Amino acid sequence: MFANFLPKEFRFFDMFDKQAAYAVEAAVYFKELTSKGTIDEEALKKIRNIEHEADEVTHTIIEQLNKTFITPFDREDIHVLAKELDDVVDMVYTIINRLTIYRLTAVNKELAEFASVIEESVLGVECAVKGLRNMKNSKSIMEYCVEVNRLENVGDVMRDKALAKLFDTEKDPIFIIKWKEIYQDAETILDICEDLANTIESILVKQA
Amino acid sequence: MFANFLPKEFRFFDMFDKQAAYAVEAAVYFKELTSKGTIDEEALKKIRNIEHEADEVTHTIIEQLNKTFITPFDREDIHVLAKELDDVVDMVYTIINRLTIYRLTAVNKELAEFASVIEESVLGVECAVKGLRNMKNSKSIMEYCVEVNRLENVGDVMRDKALAKLFDTEKDPIFIIKWKEIYQDAETILDICEDLANTIESILVKQA
Amino acid sequence: MFANFLPKEFRFFDMFDKQAAYAVEAAVYFKELTSKGTIDEEALKKIRNIEHEADEVTHTIIEQLNKTFITPFDREDIHVLAKELDDVVDMVYTIINRLTIYRLTAVNKELAEFASVIEESVLGVECAVKGLRNMKNSKSIMEYCVEVNRLENVGDVMRDKALAKLFDTEKDPIFIIKWKEIYQDAETILDICEDLANTIESILVKQA
Repeated sequence: MFANFLPKEFRFFDMFDKQAAYAVEAAVYFKELTSKGTIDEEALKKIRNIEHEADEVTHTIIEQLNKTFITPFDREDIHVLAKELDDVVDMVYTIINRLTIYRLTAVNKELAEFASVIEESVLGVECAVKGLRNMKNSKSIMEYCVEVNRLENVGDVMRDKALAKLFDTEKDPIFIIKWKEIYQDAETILDICEDLANTIESILVKQA
Repeated sequence: MFANFLPKEFRFFDMFDKQAAYAVEAAVYFKELTSKGTIDEEALKKIRNIEHEADEVTHTIIEQLNKTFITPFDREDIHVLAKELDDVVDMVYTIINRLTIYRLTAVNKELAEFASVIEESVLGVECAVKGLRNMKNSKSIMEYCVEVNRLENVGDVMRDKALAKLFDTEKDPIFIIKWKEIYQDAETILDICEDLANTIESILVKQA
Repeated sequence: MFANFLPKEFRFFDMFDKQAAYAVEAAVYFKELTSKGTIDEEALKKIRNIEHEADEVTHTIIEQLNKTFITPFDREDIHVLAKELDDVVDMVYTIINRLTIYRLTAVNKELAEFASVIEESVLGVECAVKGLRNMKNSKSIMEYCVEVNRLENVGDVMRDKALAKLFDTEKDPIFIIKWKEIYQDAETILDICEDLANTIESILVKQA
């Protein structure tokens, strides 16, 4: 692809890689927290830092995009890809922040399972994003995208089961309000990963 | 319009018709369920099948769109139209799934009323979509779009009344949590239909 | 900018100004209501009128946009800008409507604080929008956008504190359900203002 010869464009790929790395950092840390089983102020501070740093990369991409005439693929796709990668980190921050606000310092088994699937999915997204700089990778990128889509379906089933169990066994409505939202947040992270997989697939198809 | 002479483009219209037909199938089935008054595992299985089939048509459209150079109207509009038609079916599945998870097997009068308005609205969308292949239909398409917009307003009033009644009469907070979300889901289906009407109107205006 | 010499284009700026004026009217009225401390049917009627009038301006913009060949900036940006300005008024209507449905006629201190920040933010958006017709204003527009972004962060902290207080002190789950949603609505208005600031910034950068 012609655009690959333009040094300027490489920066977009570098910056997508950086965004993906922050998303992975957030997801790995979230899994670590849920397997430890406790969320505290320290955890919130750490994820807030990751979120801020990821934010800066996103701003740089949007700024560059507005200034750059030739882009490695569709301007709109770059915009969406950057936005969605940023959304992953934001959403991991949101869920940890909400756990703190709701004083849900003891994490349950359901959330720990979600965190594992989220980590897997974000790692899949990272591999797909890294592949983007060379269209020779398109077959393996597609496989990562299919896997991310599969994990979103896994997440749907997990959320449905977790909610059914919550409503079937829990009597305290305030507890239900809190956990219902946490499970939906967790599923939202997998939805964003699926959106990312779809965005990446459509970039591939256009360049085929 | 020149594009109408290209055989390839007709497939987009055929596929939009298919999507609309699935949306109607889902809405008609939902109304049937709510007038019978019970939701069971069988119902969930049936709506899941409709949702899967509708999904495949949507994927085909997106795939074709990425591969096709000449399209009957704006690429972005095709994308949005396909996405929104798919969202209707998804949302009908979501509401039936949620009724199952919340063990709300006995449907109330408010939801049955919603289901009637939803059916009407989706039928309006189907007529508007079918009209799209010939711009001579633009006047009648516009009338369907106006009607879909009107039904969205009807739905807003219904949701407000249903929620006011729920909060005024119900004492069990868990029951409130459940039905509040169901009513909002129902209204969301009408919102998506309104989005569809707006998308279709803007396609018409651009081709006028 | 060449487009500035075309009389037609001026109408877009005039209409954006009108939309922004309705957003300000809604925000100022909302602050007034919250400082008075009571919401009644009269208030709902007044905000509904503002919402209807703002809606008409938005429809005119979208219609004109679809018919106009040359636009003062990116078509998509005009569309997004019009949509987001409309969303501000819609959301102020939504929050007042919800307060009425939930019979929350007595406003609390937290919401009054939110209303002040919302008013400030919407005034910032109005100044930024007004500046758009002359790119010489770009420096001051940017400053307004930075301020609107800052106020969104202020709103995030306010919502987190309000929710923490609500869950820490309130025992009635139905009361929690109601106020949780009201606080989130309030924060959503600031989110929309932030989206507007980002849209405006990207318009500026493209024209630099």
